[in-house]
Amino acid sequence: MSDPVAESDTVDATTALVERLIAAGRSVAVAESLTGGAVLADLVRVPGASAVVRGGVVAYDTELKQSLLGVDAALLAAHGPVHPAVAAAMAEGVRAVAVVGGHPADLGVATTGVAGPDAQGGAPVGLVYVAVADAERTLVREHRFSGDRAAVRRQALEAALALLAEAVAG
Amino acid sequence: MSDPVAESDTVDATTALVERLIAAGRSVAVAESLTGGAVLADLVRVPGASAVVRGGVVAYDTELKQSLLGVDAALLAAHGPVHPAVAAAMAEGVRAVAVVGGHPADLGVATTGVAGPDAQGGAPVGLVYVAVADAERTLVREHRFSGDRAAVRRQALEAALALLAEAVAG
Repeated sequence: MSDPVAESDTVDATTALVERLIAAGRSVAVAESLTGGAVLADLVRVPGASAVVRGGVVAYDTELKQSLLGVDAALLAAHGPVHPAVAAAMAEGVRAVAVVGGHPADLGVATTGVAGPDAQGGAPVGLVYVAVADAERTLVREHRFSGDRAAVRRQALEAALALLAEAVAG
Repeated sequence: MSDPVAESDTVDATTALVERLIAAGRSVAVAESLTGGAVLADLVRVPGASAVVRGGVVAYDTELKQSLLGVDAALLAAHGPVHPAVAAAMAEGVRAVAVVGGHPADLGVATTGVAGPDAQGGAPVGLVYVAVADAERTLVREHRFSGDRAAVRRQALEAALALLAEAVAG
């Protein structure tokens, strides 16, 4: 039914990242809070992404971070959702739940932070943590982004993909 | 840290929809396949979305439709993931898993279909099912979209939000 319109062949950073994941045969799952699905949506833009991108969980409500990703309730109660240990637990949690063929995903990616317009608990607008977990280690990065809600979310998306690229390269 | 940059006050369809959900106090969760998180990402663009948008599951891999959303394995085995009953089960499933404060989400939304570039099983590129479930009923719509991968996904996103708007209005 559809015209055989070719995808743009512009090689952007996300395309290069997904192609690297495909070449390496490494699967990925994503747990998103403030980015709300935008990281996954960006990854699946790339034709062939289904070979490595399994999906994930958008845990926008804090309670879903616990119920769907297994983030420790005491950790959330003590620090709130915008905390490096929460980002790490989300990345590790989504790896674990995205089981295909009996195996967890090779890589788990997570975002948590405050997009605004209002601060959240003690956390200011623009404070963002991104994390990437594999079977051996979990990397977490703290960022303090400027700009409005859309700008903070876009920068969080880019930071998550940059950390994933770093983990894949490393 | 951030400039107090105002969000755009353009009233688009998604903004109007989220504002209607907020006014009605109706929570929503989303289960996405071919849209890969884009429906949720569009909803959380709107400031104040966190009051009603709980999150959801991106079940890009078929196995996750079963494990994370409770879609019946026999249904998936018989018909594959691009089927109206799968869309309905995804919408009902994500309502059920997005529990906050002991209550499922008021509304569950789902997308499944073939973005391309290749057909999937017997399903042609552009065949898309969207569904919306509440406590009483589940609506499903079949679409046959034209265009490339990006165009199919964008139309699927718009169809899912249009069906959600219809359910909220009804």
